[in-house]
Amino acid sequence: MSYALQAETLVRQLEMAPFLDALEASAPGIVDHETWAAIIDHAARFACDVIAPLDVALDREGARFVDGRVETARGHRAAWEHFARDGWLTLALPEEAGGQALPLTLLTACEELFNRASPAFTMLATPNRTAAAMLQVAAGPEIRESWVPRLVSGEWAATICISEPDAGSDVGRIRTRALCGSDGVWRITGDKCWISYGDHDLTTRIGHCMLARSSDAPGIRGLSLFLVPSTSEDGAPNGVEVRRIEEKLGLHGSPTCVLGFDGAQASLIGAEGRGLQTLFQMMLLMRLSCAPQGVGVAEAALSTALGYARDRRQGGDPAAGPVPIVEHADVQRQLLRMAARVEIGRGIALAAAAVMDLSERSIAAEARAGWVALAQFLLPIAKDFSARLGFDVASEAIQVLGGAGYTREWPVERHLRDARVFALFEGTTGIQALDMLHRRLWRDAGEGLRRFLSAARADLLDDPLAAATARTLDRLERVSQRLDSWRAKPRDAEAGATAFLDLCGLAVGGWIAWRLVRFAGDDRIGRRIKGAARFFLEELDARAEVEAQLATLGAGRLDVMDDYLAP
Amino acid sequence: MSYALQAETLVRQLEMAPFLDALEASAPGIVDHETWAAIIDHAARFACDVIAPLDVALDREGARFVDGRVETARGHRAAWEHFARDGWLTLALPEEAGGQALPLTLLTACEELFNRASPAFTMLATPNRTAAAMLQVAAGPEIRESWVPRLVSGEWAATICISEPDAGSDVGRIRTRALCGSDGVWRITGDKCWISYGDHDLTTRIGHCMLARSSDAPGIRGLSLFLVPSTSEDGAPNGVEVRRIEEKLGLHGSPTCVLGFDGAQASLIGAEGRGLQTLFQMMLLMRLSCAPQGVGVAEAALSTALGYARDRRQGGDPAAGPVPIVEHADVQRQLLRMAARVEIGRGIALAAAAVMDLSERSIAAEARAGWVALAQFLLPIAKDFSARLGFDVASEAIQVLGGAGYTREWPVERHLRDARVFALFEGTTGIQALDMLHRRLWRDAGEGLRRFLSAARADLLDDPLAAATARTLDRLERVSQRLDSWRAKPRDAEAGATAFLDLCGLAVGGWIAWRLVRFAGDDRIGRRIKGAARFFLEELDARAEVEAQLATLGAGRLDVMDDYLAP
Repeated sequence: MSYALQAETLVRQLEMAPFLDALEASAPGIVDHETWAAIIDHAARFACDVIAPLDVALDREGARFVDGRVETARGHRAAWEHFARDGWLTLALPEEAGGQALPLTLLTACEELFNRASPAFTMLATPNRTAAAMLQVAAGPEIRESWVPRLVSGEWAATICISEPDAGSDVGRIRTRALCGSDGVWRITGDKCWISYGDHDLTTRIGHCMLARSSDAPGIRGLSLFLVPSTSEDGAPNGVEVRRIEEKLGLHGSPTCVLGFDGAQASLIGAEGRGLQTLFQMMLLMRLSCAPQGVGVAEAALSTALGYARDRRQGGDPAAGPVPIVEHADVQRQLLRMAARVEIGRGIALAAAAVMDLSERSIAAEARAGWVALAQFLLPIAKDFSARLGFDVASEAIQVLGGAGYTREWPVERHLRDARVFALFEGTTGIQALDMLHRRLWRDAGEGLRRFLSAARADLLDDPLAAATARTLDRLERVSQRLDSWRAKPRDAEAGATAFLDLCGLAVGGWIAWRLVRFAGDDRIGRRIKGAARFFLEELDARAEVEAQLATLGAGRLDVMDDYLAP
Repeated sequence: MSYALQAETLVRQLEMAPFLDALEASAPGIVDHETWAAIIDHAARFACDVIAPLDVALDREGARFVDGRVETARGHRAAWEHFARDGWLTLALPEEAGGQALPLTLLTACEELFNRASPAFTMLATPNRTAAAMLQVAAGPEIRESWVPRLVSGEWAATICISEPDAGSDVGRIRTRALCGSDGVWRITGDKCWISYGDHDLTTRIGHCMLARSSDAPGIRGLSLFLVPSTSEDGAPNGVEVRRIEEKLGLHGSPTCVLGFDGAQASLIGAEGRGLQTLFQMMLLMRLSCAPQGVGVAEAALSTALGYARDRRQGGDPAAGPVPIVEHADVQRQLLRMAARVEIGRGIALAAAAVMDLSERSIAAEARAGWVALAQFLLPIAKDFSARLGFDVASEAIQVLGGAGYTREWPVERHLRDARVFALFEGTTGIQALDMLHRRLWRDAGEGLRRFLSAARADLLDDPLAAATARTLDRLERVSQRLDSWRAKPRDAEAGATAFLDLCGLAVGGWIAWRLVRFAGDDRIGRRIKGAARFFLEELDARAEVEAQLATLGAGRLDVMDDYLAP
């Protein structure tokens, strides 16, 4: 569909997003659909006119590693400056950080449009604005006053530096050292990898938000957060070397760097030994920004497939002319399956964003803790649902286009390549699934899950279309009780963790689908949304039952692995 | 696993492949496991030593379009000549065509090894040997004596030219014209596209096996089969122009050409107006060759993932050193799921090949018709199961490798790109599904399905592990009866055709899995195979039930499509 139609759909979904009453109660005046619609309309035009034309160049020219520095594609910098100038970096930042104090829910809708146009381009905005929000709260006045205004203006950029060659998902094994000299200055030495936009020529300076080991305390207790500038303010080197950029399958416009730090001067952010805690909110926000990524790319692929299916003629009565392939039942099934997942992924992303808004804006500590628990439950789901949505829908779009989809004449192969990384970065599917099990279900005693079940059940009516969702909520509760009882044999639960995450996704998706059926209205936009949601609900029981079964098969079936291990 | 271990696994699977008794009865002496094992051992070494080292160059240099001709990558031609010299083109050809008269079942096993090493390389062999087999039967003596020896020696190559810009899946709309001049010579004019190896410098001449319209009879009745040489025997042009090659997502080593024919001289093969019928066996054989393609690429990806998971250390008790990720339950689940599908896909491919052997070698017409019916049922299943296996397992391997898998330092992203086309060429998934419904179930009254059900049920014992397969066979029978009753409302059945094809795949897979559990033996190879098959059976009920439900949801749910059609 066109960007304008996508914008209309987003506006409609925003009107019926869950938890808006609570959001309005916690920040009166914040829910303002008229303003939101105007901003979404702007975002759609910006995505279509400025970002989208750049995506082919980002893919083909990509980012090049030349003489130790990263050079971006022609037009990339101009678009970035335009993006910053138009205020898209400041939308959801608090006023004290120079922001517009609009909700993350609205930002998430805008980001879906930007990601549809180019995920590689849109990715740079996330560390910028989340680092600005983090520094505003956690940094001392000097750093705050120097960095926050320049991050929100887009003059400088930020990264998040966590992974190392031997510490990917396993943060506790970080080795990069931070030493405080007798001059009171911290200096960082070590290697960091998988750093998105770790170097580039889009801004004049880059601030690396870096976890490093500042003491001998083991595991994460020895980690502190630092801000490491790429250079001094006047451009003098700071012991930061760009070792290489990764040659990737896709997302070529977003340089993925290996960085070496050799005594680089750094500023401690937050308390020593509390690095992960200081980064907590920034990491949650970065995870939230993954949700509109997959949905946006899926929407791009779906739109191409719909257009192609309308134009391409093939088959039909041999005596007559060929018919548009969109008239074939199997093609319709493919397109509607894609559309259904996109619409549900969109709803899940907005719901997760609304809960993040509440977790930031609720004043009473208890209410806030409740929203944080719900956010922590919803974020891995929104992130992973969207990641797999982006890849799967891109692949399904290739299928609709047939051989044409396999060529570079059409954008869907690019979408497939770009989207493949979504289930890898910011925590793989497996890591999200283990987080759900170990932290959310076991450590937090399933608090977020309980809050979700009760919110979802409060929405359900006695209606045949609600029944599949109700049964799926029951399945989820039953499976989670089973997994909860397996704390003493974690391998049995871990063997089903990914299926459990999938079941969570189907349960949240079923709830969203039912809300869409109920509230979307009967005009054309409403009928589209409802039709997609119904399509999802019709397959829900069957799909949820598989995951419920797979989640509880236990680990005994993995014993055969030993026979696979010998060379 | 190593090529040697893959070869051992293939030998074991061949020992217990279905229908070998019938094959031996129809061609005494043909089942010769000792010879087969020796040949598979050779094939494994050839794949590993000669083909595999070439695959990176085929991907990166690919095939280039230079001055109207296609140039292949360095080393490609030498490997092709070596392949031909070692007799791999003649393995399963009849003696009268210069072949070794070995069964397709054995060839399919060898092709899995070659495809693991490089699907782009292996693809050229298929039209060569299948065209040789076809010409041996259908061509006049002059063409036969000139072409067959040179095709089997690898000196000349062949293509199959069916698709046109407006006739992809819809063969009846082919427009390319064949006119017979007053000199009795046929001349071809028109455009053909998606021609694999439509041009290259690996051989001195290429023969295009081409469907063209030789009369005004509508649809397929106006189509005849022609052999159109790229040049005369002494190299003079024949009005065949290479218009361009496609820039594809993967399979860069296999040039996909658009060809223009302008009065190209051609020889009629078989009877006029019977082009599709003359091509029938060649097309079946080409479809069969797709089966080891997906399995081979999946095996390549699985092997890389297994090796990586053994070497890469991450996670585990924070107080101790990191553990190989292969020890984590979720990684084991991923690897075993991949291994299970590979082992089942391998078994399905060999079963389909054995039935193709029987369809070629049975002497009694009635028995032969029965085997043909079963082959036509099994081929779309083997083709599509394998196509999706290749892509899915490549993607799952990327997931096991994490960020590393997304880079070109590891081969799995290449496997993903290569494998994406398998569900597109030689009939997309949707076309295979409609073939299953319209031709196999409706037109042929489900004869092949019935023969499959009875063969599979004859194998089942009263054993708990057989129960899931038994239930899946029942589900398949029930669903097929339902779809059979929907002949008068084809859209309802077509809306579930792909799910029906998937259900067929799960039923055939369940049968194969049960045979593997029963016959694989208890040594290490046997335990590996059995373990994988058990893993498949444990998920079978849940997965088959979904597809059974989705296959019978009907077309009413597609009505919302109208709302998606407006711009």
